[in-house]
Amino acid sequence: MKIDRKKTYRFNNKVDYCVGTGRMGLALTKEYYDQLRIVQEEIGFKHIRGHGLFHEDMGIYEERKLFGKKSFCYNFTYLDRVIDSYLELGIEPFLELGFMPKALASGDQTIFYWKGNTTPPKSYEKWAKLIEATLTHLCDRYGRDRVVTWPVEVWNEPNLPGFWKGADMEEYFKLYKVSHEAVKRADARFKVGGPAVCGIKDEFWIRSFLEFCRKEKLKPDFVTRHHYTTEEPEWKGHFTYQFLSDPDSGFANLQTSRDAIDSFKEFKGLPIHITEFNTSYMPTNPIHDTNENAAYMAHQLSHLGDMNESYSYWTFGDVFEEHGIPHTQFYGGFGLVAAGGVRKPTFWTFAFFKRLEELGDRCIYKDEESVIVEDEKTGEIRGIVWNRGKKPIKKSFTFPAGESKALVVVRQTVDPKTTNPLKVWHDLGEPAAPSAEQLEIIKASDRPFVKTDVLHARNGEVTLTANVLGYGVEYFNIKPRTFTPDKGYNYSRVVAGFAR
Amino acid sequence: MKIDRKKTYRFNNKVDYCVGTGRMGLALTKEYYDQLRIVQEEIGFKHIRGHGLFHEDMGIYEERKLFGKKSFCYNFTYLDRVIDSYLELGIEPFLELGFMPKALASGDQTIFYWKGNTTPPKSYEKWAKLIEATLTHLCDRYGRDRVVTWPVEVWNEPNLPGFWKGADMEEYFKLYKVSHEAVKRADARFKVGGPAVCGIKDEFWIRSFLEFCRKEKLKPDFVTRHHYTTEEPEWKGHFTYQFLSDPDSGFANLQTSRDAIDSFKEFKGLPIHITEFNTSYMPTNPIHDTNENAAYMAHQLSHLGDMNESYSYWTFGDVFEEHGIPHTQFYGGFGLVAAGGVRKPTFWTFAFFKRLEELGDRCIYKDEESVIVEDEKTGEIRGIVWNRGKKPIKKSFTFPAGESKALVVVRQTVDPKTTNPLKVWHDLGEPAAPSAEQLEIIKASDRPFVKTDVLHARNGEVTLTANVLGYGVEYFNIKPRTFTPDKGYNYSRVVAGFAR
Amino acid sequence: MKIDRKKTYRFNNKVDYCVGTGRMGLALTKEYYDQLRIVQEEIGFKHIRGHGLFHEDMGIYEERKLFGKKSFCYNFTYLDRVIDSYLELGIEPFLELGFMPKALASGDQTIFYWKGNTTPPKSYEKWAKLIEATLTHLCDRYGRDRVVTWPVEVWNEPNLPGFWKGADMEEYFKLYKVSHEAVKRADARFKVGGPAVCGIKDEFWIRSFLEFCRKEKLKPDFVTRHHYTTEEPEWKGHFTYQFLSDPDSGFANLQTSRDAIDSFKEFKGLPIHITEFNTSYMPTNPIHDTNENAAYMAHQLSHLGDMNESYSYWTFGDVFEEHGIPHTQFYGGFGLVAAGGVRKPTFWTFAFFKRLEELGDRCIYKDEESVIVEDEKTGEIRGIVWNRGKKPIKKSFTFPAGESKALVVVRQTVDPKTTNPLKVWHDLGEPAAPSAEQLEIIKASDRPFVKTDVLHARNGEVTLTANVLGYGVEYFNIKPRTFTPDKGYNYSRVVAGFAR
Amino acid sequence: MKIDRKKTYRFNNKVDYCVGTGRMGLALTKEYYDQLRIVQEEIGFKHIRGHGLFHEDMGIYEERKLFGKKSFCYNFTYLDRVIDSYLELGIEPFLELGFMPKALASGDQTIFYWKGNTTPPKSYEKWAKLIEATLTHLCDRYGRDRVVTWPVEVWNEPNLPGFWKGADMEEYFKLYKVSHEAVKRADARFKVGGPAVCGIKDEFWIRSFLEFCRKEKLKPDFVTRHHYTTEEPEWKGHFTYQFLSDPDSGFANLQTSRDAIDSFKEFKGLPIHITEFNTSYMPTNPIHDTNENAAYMAHQLSHLGDMNESYSYWTFGDVFEEHGIPHTQFYGGFGLVAAGGVRKPTFWTFAFFKRLEELGDRCIYKDEESVIVEDEKTGEIRGIVWNRGKKPIKKSFTFPAGESKALVVVRQTVDPKTTNPLKVWHDLGEPAAPSAEQLEIIKASDRPFVKTDVLHARNGEVTLTANVLGYGVEYFNIKPRTFTPDKGYNYSRVVAGFAR
Repeated sequence: MKIDRKKTYRFNNKVDYCVGTGRMGLALTKEYYDQLRIVQEEIGFKHIRGHGLFHEDMGIYEERKLFGKKSFCYNFTYLDRVIDSYLELGIEPFLELGFMPKALASGDQTIFYWKGNTTPPKSYEKWAKLIEATLTHLCDRYGRDRVVTWPVEVWNEPNLPGFWKGADMEEYFKLYKVSHEAVKRADARFKVGGPAVCGIKDEFWIRSFLEFCRKEKLKPDFVTRHHYTTEEPEWKGHFTYQFLSDPDSGFANLQTSRDAIDSFKEFKGLPIHITEFNTSYMPTNPIHDTNENAAYMAHQLSHLGDMNESYSYWTFGDVFEEHGIPHTQFYGGFGLVAAGGVRKPTFWTFAFFKRLEELGDRCIYKDEESVIVEDEKTGEIRGIVWNRGKKPIKKSFTFPAGESKALVVVRQTVDPKTTNPLKVWHDLGEPAAPSAEQLEIIKASDRPFVKTDVLHARNGEVTLTANVLGYGVEYFNIKPRTFTPDKGYNYSRVVAGFAR
Repeated sequence: MKIDRKKTYRFNNKVDYCVGTGRMGLALTKEYYDQLRIVQEEIGFKHIRGHGLFHEDMGIYEERKLFGKKSFCYNFTYLDRVIDSYLELGIEPFLELGFMPKALASGDQTIFYWKGNTTPPKSYEKWAKLIEATLTHLCDRYGRDRVVTWPVEVWNEPNLPGFWKGADMEEYFKLYKVSHEAVKRADARFKVGGPAVCGIKDEFWIRSFLEFCRKEKLKPDFVTRHHYTTEEPEWKGHFTYQFLSDPDSGFANLQTSRDAIDSFKEFKGLPIHITEFNTSYMPTNPIHDTNENAAYMAHQLSHLGDMNESYSYWTFGDVFEEHGIPHTQFYGGFGLVAAGGVRKPTFWTFAFFKRLEELGDRCIYKDEESVIVEDEKTGEIRGIVWNRGKKPIKKSFTFPAGESKALVVVRQTVDPKTTNPLKVWHDLGEPAAPSAEQLEIIKASDRPFVKTDVLHARNGEVTLTANVLGYGVEYFNIKPRTFTPDKGYNYSRVVAGFAR
Repeated sequence: MKIDRKKTYRFNNKVDYCVGTGRMGLALTKEYYDQLRIVQEEIGFKHIRGHGLFHEDMGIYEERKLFGKKSFCYNFTYLDRVIDSYLELGIEPFLELGFMPKALASGDQTIFYWKGNTTPPKSYEKWAKLIEATLTHLCDRYGRDRVVTWPVEVWNEPNLPGFWKGADMEEYFKLYKVSHEAVKRADARFKVGGPAVCGIKDEFWIRSFLEFCRKEKLKPDFVTRHHYTTEEPEWKGHFTYQFLSDPDSGFANLQTSRDAIDSFKEFKGLPIHITEFNTSYMPTNPIHDTNENAAYMAHQLSHLGDMNESYSYWTFGDVFEEHGIPHTQFYGGFGLVAAGGVRKPTFWTFAFFKRLEELGDRCIYKDEESVIVEDEKTGEIRGIVWNRGKKPIKKSFTFPAGESKALVVVRQTVDPKTTNPLKVWHDLGEPAAPSAEQLEIIKASDRPFVKTDVLHARNGEVTLTANVLGYGVEYFNIKPRTFTPDKGYNYSRVVAGFAR
Repeated sequence: MKIDRKKTYRFNNKVDYCVGTGRMGLALTKEYYDQLRIVQEEIGFKHIRGHGLFHEDMGIYEERKLFGKKSFCYNFTYLDRVIDSYLELGIEPFLELGFMPKALASGDQTIFYWKGNTTPPKSYEKWAKLIEATLTHLCDRYGRDRVVTWPVEVWNEPNLPGFWKGADMEEYFKLYKVSHEAVKRADARFKVGGPAVCGIKDEFWIRSFLEFCRKEKLKPDFVTRHHYTTEEPEWKGHFTYQFLSDPDSGFANLQTSRDAIDSFKEFKGLPIHITEFNTSYMPTNPIHDTNENAAYMAHQLSHLGDMNESYSYWTFGDVFEEHGIPHTQFYGGFGLVAAGGVRKPTFWTFAFFKRLEELGDRCIYKDEESVIVEDEKTGEIRGIVWNRGKKPIKKSFTFPAGESKALVVVRQTVDPKTTNPLKVWHDLGEPAAPSAEQLEIIKASDRPFVKTDVLHARNGEVTLTANVLGYGVEYFNIKPRTFTPDKGYNYSRVVAGFAR
């Protein structure tokens, strides 16, 4: 491949805008904090989004009998603790309003092992007050100017009956309106959106939602939806297996949302936030722990910004209870990080795309297996090559070397041979809770293999060749090489060896 | 190779008994502390030995004019600070008495960039008092029962004229006697020895030393000598290049010391401590930074315990000034660790031998390229294979598997492809002081490559094959594998992939 | 007071044997871990005991429908995580068997905000298996020899109907027998006991329990009970106020347990573990946050060892949910430590008694306001003086000085003027969740005031005078003073000042 | 004192602009780093200035025989290490050019125990190249835009014969000119100045220096001088005692520098940097360790900004060797921090003035014993009261309370009773090197005593009364109090006690 540095490609890299999380109550745990710290140190997401803000274990809406008397208050003890820890780790919430506090619920339908109540409020007025009180409290504690930049999404996947009683669209629109208005009362600067749909009839829901907004003269600040790319599940014991679907059909489906929105004059160009995406939507699908997932995700990350404002990987870590408490070190959880702080291969896909983002948005090459950006000022180049198939691929890129006689390339490789903690764990016997010693071995395998090379310019060009194993992802950066040897140092002689 | 677990081999592994260091005054620096911390965390030596206890920069012997008046005192401020930091890091001194405080010196001959005075004391009485006061102070501050276990060596390499004026043997014996007696006066339980010879006429010196002791009715607790294995130096700019000498000639030379001692009835069996050893004795020889050195050292470590009580690698780190302040990140320094905490390949040779030692002293195989130990109780096996040559080697070991159907092997490989920070630094342009970003890349290459495998038993046996690259060192451990898969988890299906 | 160092007093100091905790599921949280770390760093308890081992949020007993099929397993993921963190912090469990997993419960009676099920098992066989499986798992993971030293208590406060359906004594005895036998099946070396009674009819329950054991030929390894010392509660909003009861009536009640046990020939001398004690048994009584509580506890700690093997303060920290999620920084919680790691006055009472314990068990003085121990070998003396009243007290102790001309006394004072984070928080306006800046101010007030003095011997004696404010606790230690001034240093001149 | 918040006072608070240090080579030590870290965490100086940039132990100017051949290079290994650690700690150099590298020196006159060479260069050309090379290296490594903001001072105290051979003024001017021009060649943006005079004939030197500059058409960017305020020394053993001089005579002397400069049309208004100040200029005067020094310094800090751009306390820490290696924990060293990280009383004077600076520069009250600033926007008030005498003083301030009914005052007191590590160390017997246990006791006394109060407004005013012990310094801040009690919480009832 000959790279012409003057030509640029469309590449809207929003890899670090947002990441998903298990329910907010889990953010109180130490394991969650430790996993998120690892993610933030290396990747550094800006926002975090998940369910359960108003769930029982957060205890915000407190209505009960106390010493024989009725007692009511908002209790923000745990919310403050969670938000404190988020800010400590340099991440801010993308708030999802839900699910329903038991005392305010109109029914007892729940979802998940942790029993999130998915029924409408029995009093929309109290629901509105709850939203307003919560946002106002956050503004008071964390500074209004800061808090109003935290996006707010109304509910989750109301188009699925499990998440919203009867998948009742009219009821959701009512909820949306009340919520939207409550948020704006707290501060008109808040950005608020919906309908957070997933899969079934998504296009219909989005169109209907926008029609409702038009009718009600509501102006949502953004539209939200989800994006998963696997087929029907098959269940075995505690686990789920699914085949990957064709990425293109997924992108086509995403395009329907874009088109639907743009068909409304008032809403044309409204940003879409994909508030959840992953390969499988099942928290017990072993694919999440594999190199295959890492390579698949690289492809996704090179595309998703084309029509969406952001895309939030579901989820940063393996502290997760929707299908119950995990039984074992690797359980097919969504996380970029597994128990004990083990970084899965997909972790690195995100880390690598983050490094591209840090260099800037000038994309000088992109195809279905690679993306390359450069910093025009320093001449630094960063790129990623991935291989979604099983067999090795080889890609060569020829760049103009500018005035440099030699360039240094640093490669970081994540493939089944170099970075495969799942295999190590399997070899160790698949221990449910590895011993400290076993964990250390697993972690020795959770980082990229690093390799440097000198590329010498010929005719003002250098060529970089990447041989990428099946399911591999390779990151590289290239910089001019300044050679400053010390007096008398002769590396060739050193390489030649010291034996007679 | 068929391993008969019942047969054992001679292997006296004392890898962690002692390590060398740049002069004591350097132990006050932060870089020294940080490098030693890294060494102690992974290897954990018991003792540390180097020069300069009584050198000016330690300030112990303080005789001067102060505000116009004569002033004398012992000043232990810096000694305490150094010993505090040693104990903090879990290491204790192997004390070397020397060099001569300027105010006590009979001449002005010095050695090294840092000008250690290498002349006899002008007053042997004051020298004796200095020793006694220093040891007594240490006993007071750190506990007598502890301090008396710190070995004491009298001076360094008096057989070389640079280290001891005129290499004057008689004068050294006088120094030895006075020192020996002073040490024993401080506490008779102290172990004291000499003559710390290196190279030239070593056998003659040792014999003469013991004859002197016999005559004077002195009973040294041990004999000390050094051991380097390179040929004549060639100088280029700031650097020195030397060829490696044949290890066997070195071992033969070591045997002469053993034989010399054992020829004295009174001293037969007296322990020998090799208080310095390395390939090259030059602190500017690039070999120290190479994989070749790591492989050569593995061979040494498999042999040195055969006739010696201990052997102290010269030195743990690259904070060193004998030939001046280093100019660059890698400068051919002796250290196991380089500036910025970079672990050189040889670091891992020591770490691997330490792991053998931790398993115990039952050696079930040893040849010139490998050594293997086992824990009879648990059945765990640990081994090291090294390759001193340039071409790959292949070694196979067949073990009885006991009752296990499968074993797990964890391999850690250190070779020019996996663990070669010197090459990375070279590729980056040999920067004198790498930037933080460059250092991170170098450090990404300073650790072993880890790989696990399952060995399935056939006919009650398993076979481990090690393919070791030129200059490579491979550590492995083998344990029975307990396989505890969770319900429904099927690793084969995961490996097969999720694409249709 | 003249202290005769040869006379000794009964003082069985078991201050660090055990401490209480909120339910085990809370041990997964970061705030819990951080608070426990603070406690362990300064006090260092050996064991930790609380409720909820088998509660839903630990998820151990997992019986459910999964993907439409019945599924059963024991899930030790969270148990391992909790025990890992305990061992990391140097504390080991004192296991309490309870409450009932929902799927195994015979009824739906629950206790507390967190709904611990307090009904008998619907299958005693499954209950026994659960115990055996859990203990066996712990032995496998943490080492059998270690785990069998963790005491096991059967249930909590079955004599209160809220904790055990109907306070049904016969049913409890059945539970005890089944549990006792299950524990011993896991390993006969386990120590097991009951009946963990509190308050109502405690003597009757203990006698009946032992009669049952005699009849059934069960040999409990110890007897357990609780000990609280406040009167009837008065409720206001979220808080409870109670008067302190007379300590002597409490001690008299404790004696009834001792006497009851000793009246059985088979059980005479059986150890009593007080597995919970505090002033108030309400987790919303502000007394727990006060200096008054600290002084009261000092008195308790000087007595409780007289007839009991141990006494476990309820609880180490303020992460606690029995009456709901706390609303505010100080909420009258049981903890030695409050939110954000603030050490309450009572924390220091325990820290001070721990220091006495570390010096040894030779008590040379004890009265209702003080206790003093000495180390016969070094001559070091440590003591505590406390003041349960509101007005200052003054206590003087005259000691033989031995051969010392001067002694150094180091005092650490905890009283309403020196160490009163509750007052600071109040002055700051009682913020529910203090800002980082406010928390820093509160924490500046959570440690003792330290003061040194030199006691010069007169006629071979020294006198120490302690002026203790109301609700104050003062710790002191006394050691011989070695005076080693440097040449020319004149402290009197320094104190005289440098102004002309 | 009635405070009128509308009136303001002159108070140019530059407390954190710069701090002094022992010679640069000591910055390699761990103890130095640890002490500086403590200083930076609490105070946070912007620049650091000391001697020894070109001293032997930094090794920058390397001219020698190497393996028998002449060898020359600049060696920046240690300089980079020092600057790296400074930047790590958030502090940047104020460069002092000096002393003379031995190989470049024209004579062998040295100063201090560490033998800084104080003779002119034997080649001014090489000296200029050395400066240019050093600054250029710093620009390359740390970024030119950053490095040019580091001020550069030419030599130290050339008006004293010990610091500059013969106090030869003409020679110094030559040095200045050559250096000034070399600095500007490296980058014209650098700010450079001199003549760094101290004491003797300072006014004459400054005038002559400026006349020289005028003549040579040099434009220094600033003028530097020193400022010490003690009388003649008296020596005893290792120590020096001096009386404090009258502060006003010191201020008058400072004014002469200001006047001298302003008498030159070209240089009028040129900034003065006091690049060293303290009470005593002797590193062995016990006053530096006292509360008296802290109170005296508070007074200085309230004045020094009146006519000077900055003032650099000599020195931040006790790692210092000018008069030899310290013998003991407290030795009268200049440091704000003593060995082992003990914060001396004067440390807090600086910390308190830093807090005033952080609030802004609006001074609403200032006299010889106090200074008060406020933030007009938030209404927060911060003040310091000090007492340079031996007897207690009492100061009352009455403020308008604004709309607040109550204000919270947080006081931090540093006086001989609350914060006196020197006394604690004395009581412990003046141990040369305290044990870890002794150090912990000393450190328990190295922080302010913190106390809060509520000030209730009467007639729209509140009154704050400070009772300050002799040599005491009290910092306070005052903020509006928001009272948010939880339901049912009654602090009065808690204070009343729980006993019947």
